[in-house]
Amino acid sequence: MKNNDWGISEYPFVGGHEVVGRVIGKGAHVSHLEIGQRIGLGWYSRSCGLCDPCMRGDQNICVVAESAIVTRHGGFANKVRAQAFWCTPIPDALDLSAAGPLFCGGITVFNLIVQNAITALDHVAVVGIGGLGNLALQFLSAWGCEVTAISTSESKFDEAKALGATHFLHARDPDALKAAAGRFKMILVTVNVPLDWDLYMTMLDKRGKLHIVGAVPSVTSSGFPLIEQQKIIGGSPLGSPGLVKQMLDFCARKEIAPVTQKYALSQINTAFENMEAGKARYRLVLENDISS
Amino acid sequence: MKNNDWGISEYPFVGGHEVVGRVIGKGAHVSHLEIGQRIGLGWYSRSCGLCDPCMRGDQNICVVAESAIVTRHGGFANKVRAQAFWCTPIPDALDLSAAGPLFCGGITVFNLIVQNAITALDHVAVVGIGGLGNLALQFLSAWGCEVTAISTSESKFDEAKALGATHFLHARDPDALKAAAGRFKMILVTVNVPLDWDLYMTMLDKRGKLHIVGAVPSVTSSGFPLIEQQKIIGGSPLGSPGLVKQMLDFCARKEIAPVTQKYALSQINTAFENMEAGKARYRLVLENDISS
Repeated sequence: MKNNDWGISEYPFVGGHEVVGRVIGKGAHVSHLEIGQRIGLGWYSRSCGLCDPCMRGDQNICVVAESAIVTRHGGFANKVRAQAFWCTPIPDALDLSAAGPLFCGGITVFNLIVQNAITALDHVAVVGIGGLGNLALQFLSAWGCEVTAISTSESKFDEAKALGATHFLHARDPDALKAAAGRFKMILVTVNVPLDWDLYMTMLDKRGKLHIVGAVPSVTSSGFPLIEQQKIIGGSPLGSPGLVKQMLDFCARKEIAPVTQKYALSQINTAFENMEAGKARYRLVLENDISS
Repeated sequence: MKNNDWGISEYPFVGGHEVVGRVIGKGAHVSHLEIGQRIGLGWYSRSCGLCDPCMRGDQNICVVAESAIVTRHGGFANKVRAQAFWCTPIPDALDLSAAGPLFCGGITVFNLIVQNAITALDHVAVVGIGGLGNLALQFLSAWGCEVTAISTSESKFDEAKALGATHFLHARDPDALKAAAGRFKMILVTVNVPLDWDLYMTMLDKRGKLHIVGAVPSVTSSGFPLIEQQKIIGGSPLGSPGLVKQMLDFCARKEIAPVTQKYALSQINTAFENMEAGKARYRLVLENDISS
C-alpha cells in the first residue's frame, strides 16, 4: 500500500490496518463498546449494513465496504477512527501486543476454513509460511486436520512443524509436488506470486479446492481438471465481524497467537526494510512510543 | 470423439454414448433390471464401487471410471454392453425416442443445479443454447429460477424463451454483457470455446460461480474477483446413477424433454454433417434401422 502496488493508495498515506488499542471515544449509539476497552480493527473499517451481502452476514463483501487505509487513515498514528461495527473487543486471555495480526491475516485464513466447511477429516496444504501461513498452520492443526506446509524456504520447516504442520513439500521440487497428486482437499495459497497452477491443481483430491488469499495477478487452469475431477478455484477476503469474534474466542481457547517480532513505532522504517527483505518472522508489530 | 479431438479415441471407433434401448441379457446378480426393460446409458459405463468417490456416491468421478466409448464400443451398434449399475431404467412416462440426450447432456446440467444448491431464489445464466443448453434452460425454469440465455445466435432467442429463459444477452455484444455486472448467482458455460473470462466473472454476483461443463481448453481469472468478491470457478462431469434416476423422475413429473431431430441410424453420416455444420436443434437422435 505504501508503494501503491495495487493502484488504490492515496497520498498522504497513513498505513496500519491490523490495529489494536483502547477505545478513547465513541458515538452515542455505540452500546457494545466501553471507553478504555481493548479492541481491534482489520482491513475493513466500514460497511453499509443495508446491501444484500451485509444483510446476509457477509459484511466483508459489502458492496461499498471501506478499508481502514483506503480513503481513510490507518493505525500508524496516535488515533484511528472506524465504524464501531468493525471494532471487535479482544478477550482478556489474548496478549494485546500479539493480537493485531489476527484482524487481517488471522481472519483471512480462519474464514476460509469455516466457509469451506473444513473438518478434521481433511488434508489441507498451506502454500507460504508467512504472515498468513503461520496462522493457517495453527488454525488447521487446532481444527484436527492433516496439514502440509509448502514453502520455498526449507529453513522454515522446523518452525512450520512447531506450528502444526506434519508434512512438508519444497515448492521448488517439482518431483515432490508431482508425487503429491490427488492428496489435498484444499490448497490454501497465501503467496502473491504466480504458481504452476496446473501442477497445483493435480495435487488436489477430486472435488478439491484451490483457495486463493494471496494477491496473485491471475489464476489459470486447464479445463479438464475443473470438469472431469470437479475441482474448484476460489478465494475470499477476510471475514465478517461476527466471525472475527468467534476467531478471537477460539484463539483464547486454543492458545493460538501469531508469531511476531516487535519494533517501536519510531523504528517503522527499519521494520519496513526488514519486511521488504523477506526477514519478517512472520508479522512485525509496531508499538507506539511516539505519542499519547 | 470420431475425430479424436480430445486425444483419447481408439480405433476402430464405435461411438454413441447417449444410448437407450431394451435389456437383452444380464448377469446373474443383476436384480434391478429385467429382460425387455427400457434403460439408458450415458458417458460412463463402469465404476469400481470401491474408491473413495464411489463410496461417497460420486461414482461419476470414480478414479477408474470407464466411458461407454473409450476402450469400449458404444451405441452406434445393434448391442451395447455396460455395467448394470450404469444402466438406468426409463420411466414409462418418458418417450424412449427422446430420452437418450438426458443420459449425458441432461445429467450434466441437472447435476450441477443440485450440487451447487441452486434454488428458485437464484438468477442463473446459460451460455450456449445447444445440446446441453436446451435442457439447462428447461431444468432451471422448472426449478423456479430467473434464467438468462446467452448466445451468439439471436435466432435462437425465441426458442430459448419457449424453453424457459426470460432474459437474453447476445454474446457478441460486450456492452450488454458489461451492463449485466453483478447479476448472476451462477453462469453455466456449455460452450467449448474460450470466453472473455474476466468479463464473465464481472457478471457474477458476489460469491457467484462460473461453472464449466463445456470442454474449454482453459480458464483464466484475475486474482481480485476471486479474493475480494469471493467468486468461484469450477465444473463437473455428468452425475451419479442415483441422480440420473431422480432426473428421469423429475423430467416425467415436469414434462421435460430434450429438443431433438431424428435420423435413421443408416443416415448417420448426414446427421454428422449437419451437426458439424452447427445445424443441430439441438440433439440428433439416431434410430436403429439396420439390425435387430
